[in-house]
Amino acid sequence: MAHQDKRTFSSSDSQRQNVPYIHKVGIPPKQDLLKEFKTTVKETFFSDDPLRPFKDQPKSRQAMLGLQAIFPILEWGRNYNLKKFRGDLIAGLTIASLCIPQDIGYSKLANLPPQIGLYSSFVPPLIYAFMGSSRDIAIGPVAVVSLLLGTLLQNEFDPVNNAAEYRRLAFTATFFAGITQATLGVLRLGFLIDFLSHAAVVGFMGGAAVTIGLQQLKGFLGIKHFTKNADIISVMKSVFGSMHHGWNWETIVIGTSFLALLLSAKYLAKKKKKLFWVSAIVPLISVILSTFFVYITHAEKEGVAIVKHIEQGINPPSVNEIYFSGENLLKGFRIGIVAGMIGLTEAVAIGRTFASMKDYQVDGNKEMIALGAMNVVGSMTSCYVATGSFSRSAVNYMAGCQTAVSNIVMSCVVFLTLKFLTPLFEYTPNAILSSIIISAVIGLVDYEAAILIWKIDKFDFVACMGAFLGVVFASVEIGLLIAVSISFAKILLQVTRPRTAILGRIPMTSVYRNIQQYPEATKVPGVLIVRVDSAIYFSNSNYIKERILRWLTVEEEHLRATYQPRVQFLIIEMSPVTDIDTSGINAFEELNSSLVKRDVQLVLANPGRLVLDKLYASGFPDLIGDNKIFLTVADAVLTCSPKILQEV
Amino acid sequence: MAHQDKRTFSSSDSQRQNVPYIHKVGIPPKQDLLKEFKTTVKETFFSDDPLRPFKDQPKSRQAMLGLQAIFPILEWGRNYNLKKFRGDLIAGLTIASLCIPQDIGYSKLANLPPQIGLYSSFVPPLIYAFMGSSRDIAIGPVAVVSLLLGTLLQNEFDPVNNAAEYRRLAFTATFFAGITQATLGVLRLGFLIDFLSHAAVVGFMGGAAVTIGLQQLKGFLGIKHFTKNADIISVMKSVFGSMHHGWNWETIVIGTSFLALLLSAKYLAKKKKKLFWVSAIVPLISVILSTFFVYITHAEKEGVAIVKHIEQGINPPSVNEIYFSGENLLKGFRIGIVAGMIGLTEAVAIGRTFASMKDYQVDGNKEMIALGAMNVVGSMTSCYVATGSFSRSAVNYMAGCQTAVSNIVMSCVVFLTLKFLTPLFEYTPNAILSSIIISAVIGLVDYEAAILIWKIDKFDFVACMGAFLGVVFASVEIGLLIAVSISFAKILLQVTRPRTAILGRIPMTSVYRNIQQYPEATKVPGVLIVRVDSAIYFSNSNYIKERILRWLTVEEEHLRATYQPRVQFLIIEMSPVTDIDTSGINAFEELNSSLVKRDVQLVLANPGRLVLDKLYASGFPDLIGDNKIFLTVADAVLTCSPKILQEV
Repeated sequence: MAHQDKRTFSSSDSQRQNVPYIHKVGIPPKQDLLKEFKTTVKETFFSDDPLRPFKDQPKSRQAMLGLQAIFPILEWGRNYNLKKFRGDLIAGLTIASLCIPQDIGYSKLANLPPQIGLYSSFVPPLIYAFMGSSRDIAIGPVAVVSLLLGTLLQNEFDPVNNAAEYRRLAFTATFFAGITQATLGVLRLGFLIDFLSHAAVVGFMGGAAVTIGLQQLKGFLGIKHFTKNADIISVMKSVFGSMHHGWNWETIVIGTSFLALLLSAKYLAKKKKKLFWVSAIVPLISVILSTFFVYITHAEKEGVAIVKHIEQGINPPSVNEIYFSGENLLKGFRIGIVAGMIGLTEAVAIGRTFASMKDYQVDGNKEMIALGAMNVVGSMTSCYVATGSFSRSAVNYMAGCQTAVSNIVMSCVVFLTLKFLTPLFEYTPNAILSSIIISAVIGLVDYEAAILIWKIDKFDFVACMGAFLGVVFASVEIGLLIAVSISFAKILLQVTRPRTAILGRIPMTSVYRNIQQYPEATKVPGVLIVRVDSAIYFSNSNYIKERILRWLTVEEEHLRATYQPRVQFLIIEMSPVTDIDTSGINAFEELNSSLVKRDVQLVLANPGRLVLDKLYASGFPDLIGDNKIFLTVADAVLTCSPKILQEV
Repeated sequence: MAHQDKRTFSSSDSQRQNVPYIHKVGIPPKQDLLKEFKTTVKETFFSDDPLRPFKDQPKSRQAMLGLQAIFPILEWGRNYNLKKFRGDLIAGLTIASLCIPQDIGYSKLANLPPQIGLYSSFVPPLIYAFMGSSRDIAIGPVAVVSLLLGTLLQNEFDPVNNAAEYRRLAFTATFFAGITQATLGVLRLGFLIDFLSHAAVVGFMGGAAVTIGLQQLKGFLGIKHFTKNADIISVMKSVFGSMHHGWNWETIVIGTSFLALLLSAKYLAKKKKKLFWVSAIVPLISVILSTFFVYITHAEKEGVAIVKHIEQGINPPSVNEIYFSGENLLKGFRIGIVAGMIGLTEAVAIGRTFASMKDYQVDGNKEMIALGAMNVVGSMTSCYVATGSFSRSAVNYMAGCQTAVSNIVMSCVVFLTLKFLTPLFEYTPNAILSSIIISAVIGLVDYEAAILIWKIDKFDFVACMGAFLGVVFASVEIGLLIAVSISFAKILLQVTRPRTAILGRIPMTSVYRNIQQYPEATKVPGVLIVRVDSAIYFSNSNYIKERILRWLTVEEEHLRATYQPRVQFLIIEMSPVTDIDTSGINAFEELNSSLVKRDVQLVLANPGRLVLDKLYASGFPDLIGDNKIFLTVADAVLTCSPKILQEV
């Protein structure tokens, strides 16, 4: 190419003028198209380089590695020992005691019979233990997904009058939630869940927790006729509307006293980390105590609502209950996608948090396949959507779990419960389940995180509160929609209105920095240095062009007013400009022709590899003149300044 | 704040160690919330600082400036003189001769009677001349918007059997197109049209031109029964299906000979810029010649289709034809938004192109208000959507137009034509109109731009071809949808997978650059320097964290294999990191805890103002240690290296 020889200009140019050593701008090795395409695809979908361990290995070893990639248990299982098992056993028993009452409560949130909650803590954790890569996550039904599923499903079928269809749709949704999760993993599209920002998740979770807490007022106050809407206004109307004839004082007494007990245990565990097991065991103890109490006093005859009946025995198959055709397939599909995505977000966030605490890697895409597989199998064995639970995972971690074996232990306990113990839950009052749920979801209202978000980033706070208020005052779907929309708006704002800054030289250095951040930095006479803080794309190219011209106009007016020499060189510091597209190059050409009219020369400093490639492809360096691209701003100033002095 | 005193660490630290002068990292002046919010709003919506001229002016002058802002003619009109008028007169007459045959043809594309095309070159240019800020744009109906409007309208009403409703819906759509344009201008949301990238516009325009050209085969070949679909497959079936009985050879002879004439004139004008007026005048001459020819030979009796009748007289009012209620209001609203946006894109692109050629500013938002106002008035005076025409604006520019007065001249000529000359067009053959349209839209197939796009940016090329093929093989709406989707996908990819690079020191300097771009750059032993090329947001924070850890893992493996000292410091060059949010800070905290486990110290170089603010708000500097933030990579290396040498 003709222009390639010209790329060495600045070094030769500098030698001619005897200015200090100026390094020439790097010529990136010319990449061929296929290689470039491959690199982009690899960074987008295989950024974790999953095939690296397979390289240079014999076939048999590759097959083994492949199996291990699908079933990580084959890898860590080989180093498993009794010491690790002791940790897992204790952790497993602890989370089992926590999960049993929670499962029964959460299945109520999803408007499903209590045994389905227990089923979902039996099969999915088993599957996960074989396929998952997190060591600390505790699998099972969770509050937020149960609420979401309950809300979405009851828009389609009435959970009381159409119980059978409702149940079938729940399994269908679970099936497609699993398919969604596994598909995202297989297609390596896991990064899509990153579009729900941390701030939005905090707000959404907090809002869901408040909504769930409000829903529990039904069981907690013993109200019989309760609204089906979940927004705060409907619920409050329902609560106060039934105050004089619908509240049951015996229920309130049971609920309040055990809630106090649960919250004290939680507070104790927070104060003294070693006593975490108290808060883990108290829910089960409360269930046993209150059940015994109701049984001997026959409080159910005084209007205290009880669980009444839990099907005994393990999961029946439910393959033939899934809708594989017709309109209900579509409904289930739609609900499944939403529930699956939310489930993923929760599980992946938990996995990442604990992985970084113990410094091991959780493979997001592999994790999604594991979660997807467990939900698909779950949907065929009468389970509803299971995922990682924040509260139980934290208990699991603190109880000293070592591997996913703790999930197997929990699963076994749930199996025994289903097989032998369900009749014992007959007299369990609903109020105690409500108290357990309230005390469990209180932790999801992460006001400390919200305060930190407020301190760090106001825009994030808007997303957070938008999601929170959306869930509380409208519904979970609306809250979710608000969270996603605000997150997207932020991205669009970022790419539409990037920052620009005027640079000055920091005294005693050759470093040029933003004069707003470093007021001691001084401008170079006759030169205006502008830094553009973003890739230049179609969405911002016009803005950047006009913003630079405005900087120049303002500067020129200032110089004229103070009788200083006019601007002769405009240096654009391109370090943060990581990419440019055809619109960006058009804008640069327009900028240059405006500058030529004003008799100002355009100079570029430190364009990156990609940008330089594209500038040369478009012939832009020929347009602005040969020797106008430099490695650093300092080099550019060194070359421009002498020319100015001659003129003035 | 307690941490504020710590911000001076690096300078004092460096003095203690007697290393060369190290400037401390800048403490940005603390901004209060309201000010920050104001700045953001200003940069987003008022980036052109429209109120600057108003500052420090007396009330009466402000009122005058306000009037001038709405009617720029008050400003430039005061310096108007006879010399300028001569330029405008010639340019106006030239574009008038070009617009009359084009208007008649374009109104056929929109399935509207020919006089409506002429009406639209009478009223809208007049309004624009008073309110617009571009000096070179030529206003009137254009091919692409006519095609778009025709396609969208005929989905709702049949243009032949429901001619009255069709016409009314056209005025309704024009009204809402104007409202959309004016609203975007008033709300200063003009930047929304930037989301249609240059590449997408090139593809879309090219595709529309091909579609329009294919549509002209009806008039050009004299086919009577033609498909209503605009995609290439339907049109080709229609053309070849009627080959043996539907083509009219007399029509073909007229069409072909004049098309040859038109294209030769165009070619001539391209070769010799001075002869541009030939290509501008030839269409009208062709119309006169062919009309005369048909009139004397009575070729219309041989099956040559003619215009037949154009309503004489100027625009009748059409306010009461606009649907202001009911279902049709919604339809018109929807179509109007799309047509208005496309019209805007075209007009703003033209305005910007010519403004940068003559170095004057076109205020995008003001321009939108002018275009909106002219279309609203147009919809009430029997006009359909008018905007800036690429081909006529270029002729206007070359003919030496000085101001928008050339539009007034054109408007007067069209007025005279409507008043007195329309009966003369009775015998104008449709074939000549088709030839004129074909020769006009050929210029829109900008294959040179497409080749340049291919050279510069492959992703842009995909957007360009996607839009082109979408329009040609499906429909204008589908093409538009594809263009917008691909453009958005590009933005999302950018914010999801930013680039990272390993830096090395360039010999004989203290400059650190990407070692891929500068292979002569050398790594510093014991230190890994990573540059992150993007703001760190929720959408990429996890990727960035994991990518940095992967760089470290690969480097550590390499060092172990070659028996070199291990990495003790990880320096992150933050210059391109223009912003960070709460997810980003979370990711940094997780990164730090992983690094602590690996006994590697995290060091930051040159965080910008915003980033530094948020890092301090979150307490992150306390987490990584006091003296770990530097002004430059060189400073960071200077401070880290001695510590490494002591250890090794």
